[in-house]
Amino acid sequence: MPSSPPATAERWLAQARVGRLATVTPAGLPHVVPVCFALAGGTIFTAVDQKPKATRALARLDNVRATGRASLLVDHYEEDWSLLWWIRVDCTAAVIDSEAAIDALAAKYEQYREARPAGPVIALEPARWRSWIPSDS
Amino acid sequence: MPSSPPATAERWLAQARVGRLATVTPAGLPHVVPVCFALAGGTIFTAVDQKPKATRALARLDNVRATGRASLLVDHYEEDWSLLWWIRVDCTAAVIDSEAAIDALAAKYEQYREARPAGPVIALEPARWRSWIPSDS
Repeated sequence: MPSSPPATAERWLAQARVGRLATVTPAGLPHVVPVCFALAGGTIFTAVDQKPKATRALARLDNVRATGRASLLVDHYEEDWSLLWWIRVDCTAAVIDSEAAIDALAAKYEQYREARPAGPVIALEPARWRSWIPSDS
Repeated sequence: MPSSPPATAERWLAQARVGRLATVTPAGLPHVVPVCFALAGGTIFTAVDQKPKATRALARLDNVRATGRASLLVDHYEEDWSLLWWIRVDCTAAVIDSEAAIDALAAKYEQYREARPAGPVIALEPARWRSWIPSDS
């Protein structure tokens, strides 16, 4: 069941430059990779980029195709632990080909404007937002 | 089947202040949280700390108890993407009570010396190391 994001959580997630994408392998094992992503129209998009990482690229795509689920975590670490925060979005997920999704990624990241990803893209539809954000934010 | 870590990967993992721990729920869904951790004698330890986060604390412990697996990711982000790196350790995992494990965490983190975690601890035994590290490191 979808849940609406708190405004602060959605804004902080949208602005974060990196997140960590957790998926589950067809055999039921956990998998996690760092990803760049963009939030557009309530959907989160992430693309496989240019670096030579064939095995992990295939793993995350295979996992999404097999399970239809992914969880994206954005967090902030510093040594003053009273300032830690994190936002997690548990999502349904699909592998798609979408120039509009790559446009959203390129709008956020200059690096993608310089070297446009070929795709495919993972589209994440938030089903549940969870966060730990300092109460004065 | 265990695999030995490359020396650089093990050193960088040990020094990282924060990692992201991916687990799988009993229902097969992905879960991911930021964690502090310590590497001691080839085993990685992470404790539930002091902040009020009952639901996610229970989730990660329940997941480890149900599946016996977890994956820990450490990564570095910066805008020059040629300098990105990540290290992932796919592990067997167990929930334990261990003062020695908390000692290892307290040795790494002053915050844990000031407020010692009560436990329990998740012990991660690396089964497979994967990394993307710039070749000149």
